[in-house]
Amino acid sequence: MPDPISRIFRRAVAGDRRALARLLTRAERSESDLGDAMRLARPMSGRAAVVGVTGPPGAGKSTLADCLAAAARADGKTVGILAVDPTSPFSGGAVLGDRIRMQRHHLDPDVFVRSLATRGAGGGLSNAAAAAVRIMDAVGKDVILIETVGVGQTELDVMDVADFSLVVLVPEAGDAVQAMKAGLLEIADAFAINKADRDGAERMAAAVRGVIALDPRPPERRPAVLLTQALDGVGVDALYSHIQAALADAAESGRLARRRAERERREAARQVSASFSAALRTALADDPRAAALLGRVSRGELDARAAARQMLADGALAAALDAE
Amino acid sequence: MPDPISRIFRRAVAGDRRALARLLTRAERSESDLGDAMRLARPMSGRAAVVGVTGPPGAGKSTLADCLAAAARADGKTVGILAVDPTSPFSGGAVLGDRIRMQRHHLDPDVFVRSLATRGAGGGLSNAAAAAVRIMDAVGKDVILIETVGVGQTELDVMDVADFSLVVLVPEAGDAVQAMKAGLLEIADAFAINKADRDGAERMAAAVRGVIALDPRPPERRPAVLLTQALDGVGVDALYSHIQAALADAAESGRLARRRAERERREAARQVSASFSAALRTALADDPRAAALLGRVSRGELDARAAARQMLADGALAAALDAE
Repeated sequence: MPDPISRIFRRAVAGDRRALARLLTRAERSESDLGDAMRLARPMSGRAAVVGVTGPPGAGKSTLADCLAAAARADGKTVGILAVDPTSPFSGGAVLGDRIRMQRHHLDPDVFVRSLATRGAGGGLSNAAAAAVRIMDAVGKDVILIETVGVGQTELDVMDVADFSLVVLVPEAGDAVQAMKAGLLEIADAFAINKADRDGAERMAAAVRGVIALDPRPPERRPAVLLTQALDGVGVDALYSHIQAALADAAESGRLARRRAERERREAARQVSASFSAALRTALADDPRAAALLGRVSRGELDARAAARQMLADGALAAALDAE
Repeated sequence: MPDPISRIFRRAVAGDRRALARLLTRAERSESDLGDAMRLARPMSGRAAVVGVTGPPGAGKSTLADCLAAAARADGKTVGILAVDPTSPFSGGAVLGDRIRMQRHHLDPDVFVRSLATRGAGGGLSNAAAAAVRIMDAVGKDVILIETVGVGQTELDVMDVADFSLVVLVPEAGDAVQAMKAGLLEIADAFAINKADRDGAERMAAAVRGVIALDPRPPERRPAVLLTQALDGVGVDALYSHIQAALADAAESGRLARRRAERERREAARQVSASFSAALRTALADDPRAAALLGRVSRGELDARAAARQMLADGALAAALDAE
C-alpha cells in the first residue's frame, strides 16, 4: 500500500526533498492525491513570493531565474524553481532539464527544482503549475520562481499563478515591442533587457519604456525596465531588490491580497470547469443516451448547445459527477 | 449591417479568396458566425485530403509544406494551407507569416494560405483548426495542409484534424527518436527525414525505422520513412505520391471513413464541452448562487466537484445554457 499523502506531506514540510518530489509526482498523476495534497497545502500556503519569468526563447530566462535563485539564497531564503515547458510533452526532455539544473544547484539543499511538461491530473498546465506552486509554498519555500520556455498562450496562462511577472527580452528581439503591445505589457510587472552587453540594449530599453509610457496606469504602477547580463550576474542584485521592494509595496497597499484573491477565484473556476469536463467524459463513456446525443452532434443533426441542454435534462452529468 | 455568413460562404464557394478570408475571420471571432458557417460547411465537406505536417522547430516544415502544395498544384488540385502557431498569441507574427507566404504563392489563386495563432471562437486552437479545415474543404480546396510550429501537446491535438500526419525530422535531431517513442510514433502516418543532404540522414532514417519496427501494427500499416530535401525539391514528388496512395488505400479499406467518424465524435465532444464551459462562465457571472459557490471553492471550504454538483442541482448551468 502506498504511503498516504499526509505522511509524505509531513516529511516534505520537515525538509525532505525526496518527499517533496514524490508529493508533486503523486499530485500530478492522480486527481484524488491532488485533492488531498491541496487540502493539506491550502492552510499552510500564502507565505511564498511567487515570481514568474517569461519571454521569448533564447532570452536567457533559465540563467536569469538561476541568478535570482542565487540572490534569494544569499538573502537567506529557500527557493523552489518550477520550469514549465508546454512545447515538450515528452517527459524525457523535462527530466533531462531537471538533471542539468539539479547538478548546478545540487550542493544546495534549499533550492528545489521541478520541471512540468505534462498537463497533470487537473487537466491543464496552469492548474498543474498552480498546484505545484501551492505545494512548494506550503512546505516552506520562501521564493518560488516559475520559468516558461516561450511566450505563447499557455505560458501567459501559467504566469497567472505569479505574484510578480518578469518579462525577459534581449536587445536583438526586433519584434518584441510589437509583441509587447499585444499582450506582454498586460502581464508584466517588470522587464529585464538581458544580454545587455550586446549592441542595442539601451535602444531596446528605450523602446520598451516608450511602449510602457502608453500604459494607462499611474507612472509608479507601470512596469520597471532593468538591464541585466545574467551570464555574468550583472544587474541581478538590483533586479532581485526591485522585485522584493515591489512585492513588499504590493503587500502593504493590499494589491497583493486582491491579486491573490482574484487568482484564487479563477483557479476555483478552472477546477469547477475541470469537474464538469471530467463528468462529461464519464457520461459519454457510460451513459448510452449521452453517447447517442454526441453521435447526433457529430453527424450535424443537433447543435452542441442543444445536446448539452439535453444531457442536463436527462441528469447524465449529475449522475456522472456522483459516480466519480 | 454586415453581410450574412451564407452570402459570404456562397462567394467563397464561387472562388472568391477575399470572401474565404472573411468567412474564416468571422468564424474565428464569433461563436454564432462559427455555428452558421459550420452548418453551411458540413454537408459540402469531406472531399478534401487533409494532411498534417508536424515536427520539431527548424525541421523545414514550412518549406516542405510549400513543396507539397506545389506538387498538389502540379497534380491539378487546389490547395489550402493552414499554419498553426500556438507559441505566438500575437496576431502580428501570424499576419507577417501569411504575408511572406502569400508573396510566394500570390500568382496562384488556387493556393490559399491562412495562419491561426489564437484560440478562435470555439475556445481551443484545435477547434479553430478543425473549423478552418472544414470551411476550406467545403469551399472546394482539394488538398489542405496543416502545418505546426513545434511538437507540443497543442500541436498533437491539432494533428487530430488530419487524415494523414507527416512528421518531419532532420538528421541532427538527436533526441527525435526519444521523442518519437513517447508520442510522435502514435500519430505519424509517415516520417520525412528532411535536409537529407546533411550528414547522418541515413543513420537517422535507420534509427526511425528501428523504432517503427516495434510498432505492433502489421508492417504494411506502419509509417513509411522517406528522405527529402525540401529546399531543392528532392524527394517531394515521391512523398506526395506516397501520401496520395496511402490516402487512396485508406479510403478503399474503410479506414479513412472510420478515422473521420472517430474524429467527428471527438470534435463533437469538444463542442459539447465548450458549451458547458461557456455556460459555466455565464452562470458565474450572472447567478449569485453560483458565484457564492465559487467563492467557497476559492477559500477551500468546498471542493470543486461538490460545487459542480450543487450548481447542477440549483439549475444554474441549465439556466445559463438557455440564456445564451
